[in-house]
Amino acid sequence: MNINTDPIPLEELATFLRFKSISSEPEFKKEMLSCAKWVENFLIEAGLRAEVWETPGHPSVFGQSVFNKDSPTVLFYLHYDVQPVDPLELWESDPFEATVRNGEVYARGACDNKGQCFYTLCAIKKFLKAGNTGVNIKVIIEGEEEMGSSGLSKILESKAEALQADYLIVVDSGIPAMDTPRVTIGVRGIVTFDVQATAANMDLHSGQMGGIALNPVTELAKLFAKLWDDEGHIAIPGIYDDVIELSEEFLREVDLSIDEEGYKKSFALKGFFHEEGYSLGEGGTVRPCLEVNGFAGGYAGEGFKTIIPAKARAKLSCRIVQNQDPKKIAQIIADFLQKNAKEGIDVKIEMDHGGLPAMGNPKSPIARIIKKAYEELFGLPCKFMIMGGSIPIAASLAKTARAELILMGMVLPDDAMHAPNEHFGVKRMKMGYDIVLRSLEMLQSGENV
Amino acid sequence: MNINTDPIPLEELATFLRFKSISSEPEFKKEMLSCAKWVENFLIEAGLRAEVWETPGHPSVFGQSVFNKDSPTVLFYLHYDVQPVDPLELWESDPFEATVRNGEVYARGACDNKGQCFYTLCAIKKFLKAGNTGVNIKVIIEGEEEMGSSGLSKILESKAEALQADYLIVVDSGIPAMDTPRVTIGVRGIVTFDVQATAANMDLHSGQMGGIALNPVTELAKLFAKLWDDEGHIAIPGIYDDVIELSEEFLREVDLSIDEEGYKKSFALKGFFHEEGYSLGEGGTVRPCLEVNGFAGGYAGEGFKTIIPAKARAKLSCRIVQNQDPKKIAQIIADFLQKNAKEGIDVKIEMDHGGLPAMGNPKSPIARIIKKAYEELFGLPCKFMIMGGSIPIAASLAKTARAELILMGMVLPDDAMHAPNEHFGVKRMKMGYDIVLRSLEMLQSGENV
Repeated sequence: MNINTDPIPLEELATFLRFKSISSEPEFKKEMLSCAKWVENFLIEAGLRAEVWETPGHPSVFGQSVFNKDSPTVLFYLHYDVQPVDPLELWESDPFEATVRNGEVYARGACDNKGQCFYTLCAIKKFLKAGNTGVNIKVIIEGEEEMGSSGLSKILESKAEALQADYLIVVDSGIPAMDTPRVTIGVRGIVTFDVQATAANMDLHSGQMGGIALNPVTELAKLFAKLWDDEGHIAIPGIYDDVIELSEEFLREVDLSIDEEGYKKSFALKGFFHEEGYSLGEGGTVRPCLEVNGFAGGYAGEGFKTIIPAKARAKLSCRIVQNQDPKKIAQIIADFLQKNAKEGIDVKIEMDHGGLPAMGNPKSPIARIIKKAYEELFGLPCKFMIMGGSIPIAASLAKTARAELILMGMVLPDDAMHAPNEHFGVKRMKMGYDIVLRSLEMLQSGENV
Repeated sequence: MNINTDPIPLEELATFLRFKSISSEPEFKKEMLSCAKWVENFLIEAGLRAEVWETPGHPSVFGQSVFNKDSPTVLFYLHYDVQPVDPLELWESDPFEATVRNGEVYARGACDNKGQCFYTLCAIKKFLKAGNTGVNIKVIIEGEEEMGSSGLSKILESKAEALQADYLIVVDSGIPAMDTPRVTIGVRGIVTFDVQATAANMDLHSGQMGGIALNPVTELAKLFAKLWDDEGHIAIPGIYDDVIELSEEFLREVDLSIDEEGYKKSFALKGFFHEEGYSLGEGGTVRPCLEVNGFAGGYAGEGFKTIIPAKARAKLSCRIVQNQDPKKIAQIIADFLQKNAKEGIDVKIEMDHGGLPAMGNPKSPIARIIKKAYEELFGLPCKFMIMGGSIPIAASLAKTARAELILMGMVLPDDAMHAPNEHFGVKRMKMGYDIVLRSLEMLQSGENV
């Protein structure tokens, strides 16, 4: 890579991308540590006081530049770990040797999240090197985002003081298209369930025992059928109790529309799920939803086995929204499943309820500022959007830091995140850089946005 | 093996057992042919005119000894093929070198079905060698019972004339215990379904698409939940239309009881399925039942995948009873599934409807005779029982032969049929021999039973 593009020094980005910081593969532990060290040094160069935080897993890197307690404090969340590269044979160039083709940088982590991390740090460096002191800047760059953030989660409370901020900017999001600037104002939370139903100590002969034995697959199917009513609402009493109806005012600021035709085409869909009383876009973002993510019992391959399965297993997840408590919702769902389980079937439920939802305020200074930065740069009106998915660590971090959460980024849906030939446009990195820098300037000036 | 037990020459049985006639493994094709040839020779020795019938699969061996068209004609059904022997390391002696331990012959096929076949043929030989001419005897010994009888099924119609008989005796059944003589008077039929539901061309992200996309696992679960009502009846209109309520008189002759405590203990059951208005024993034998034999969609292993599965697949089977037509029932079920499938989900159903039910008549001469033979031999009252499972070829054969079907045998539940260390008692073989011989004698004498 022989391009030197101010203000994004691509040679330095290439160095960052060269670390094989695949967090989920133990053989790259050394690379993880080297990468964390490199990030720490970059933060120091950028003008921050930096340190590596040990966690039960891979370390996080923390940096801060605090001038005045009365100034606004912004905490950036980023990550230096990347997804595995398999299948390697589908890569057109070495995933760890960044290559520029048609203005796009190709490498594992090019967009997720090293590219976005890099332009953010470059913008912070520029801001600080220019002698700005009106914003306190903190950054947390973790090493386990691609494997569930468990290490950072576990040290959050002990680092609460250092992490205190007014605003948390998660630079790990994107925009729907180049003509559609959007700032992500919220994410849904998630609770998950592993459900195991056992009726016998071995598969039974379906002739001998058909009409006699309880069938755990059948009984789980019947149980799951009770989870929704005919109008697409979740039919578990109490599940919507804490859901706050969103105000007209809020909804005016937010674009919840989805590209129905685009989804149909991309995924070959012939129809949609629909919760009565809500638009599809609402169903995918601001309403709780319950999904069976997997179901297995007996034999369902080629041929046929005349058995009554001994066991069945399923995975469920519930996306939760603002004001819903993960533990409470998980318990409500687990209780409903247990209460409605067929007598004679042993149903074991394991829950995981770490996924907080989070919703920023479109009227907050940070939301107005970042929105304005997008509008200036794109020359187009910018609305907020809500992510139907969950970023549990972002929500927990916002809670620990007592910060207003906002998510931003310049990734496009076709950047091949997590896939072979991941890429990110040089021009878009510059745009991301401009948005971060401009946002810091507006935050400092306190200009009325 | 150095025992020579009249009337069951064990050395000859050992020769029969030595053939590795594993029908499902192509490498044993030659052994299958040698075994069929050996059976043909044995039939000739026994005094029958014998021939090997080619089929699209492994051959069947047919033999007959017809003296007088006005005499009763009995057709015996047996098979010379056996199950595979895996796992070989669990066998205590060579599965193809018969060994006698504690009065039991250990070998693959010892009971299923070579042992039962052998005592039947020995009894026929004895009957014919004694100069009896008052019964026309036919035997069909097939080579694909353990893999679905497809070859014989396909040639049945073309062999209809040769197969004509008054009675079909399938010697491939057993008794519940040595103090519980039973004759099997009927079997349920079976129709099977492969159901594939597709909603998208790839697994979808359950955050992005949760609340928007249709979930084929969820929709199949909802669909299957509609298959039964709250009282355990199949809730498909028309499914019971052709079921004949059994007369008090019939039920008096038949023992439909099941060993509830025994089942609970053997299979670690905590409860039973129960169709309102019918006993458990009826539910398992003389009532249709519908089972989900397998269900798979999405990911249900360790860990978690936050996906909405693109597809789901399930296997269903319906056991049908006397007077129900497999094709009609299959169509009723498939139509119900299609009609109730969620719009937007592509549901493909493949059916297999070859499994005829069959029910003999407890008052028929053959039923009375065999019952009496058991009673004489055991010195105990003998009732009839009904097999909840299906033997499609037996039912088809009875239909083609226009014969009254009856099933008999001396296998016990713990003879390790299909498992390592399959075995069969020498004494029980002698009892089986006596029952066959005595039945032929009674049939010839026309004695009033």
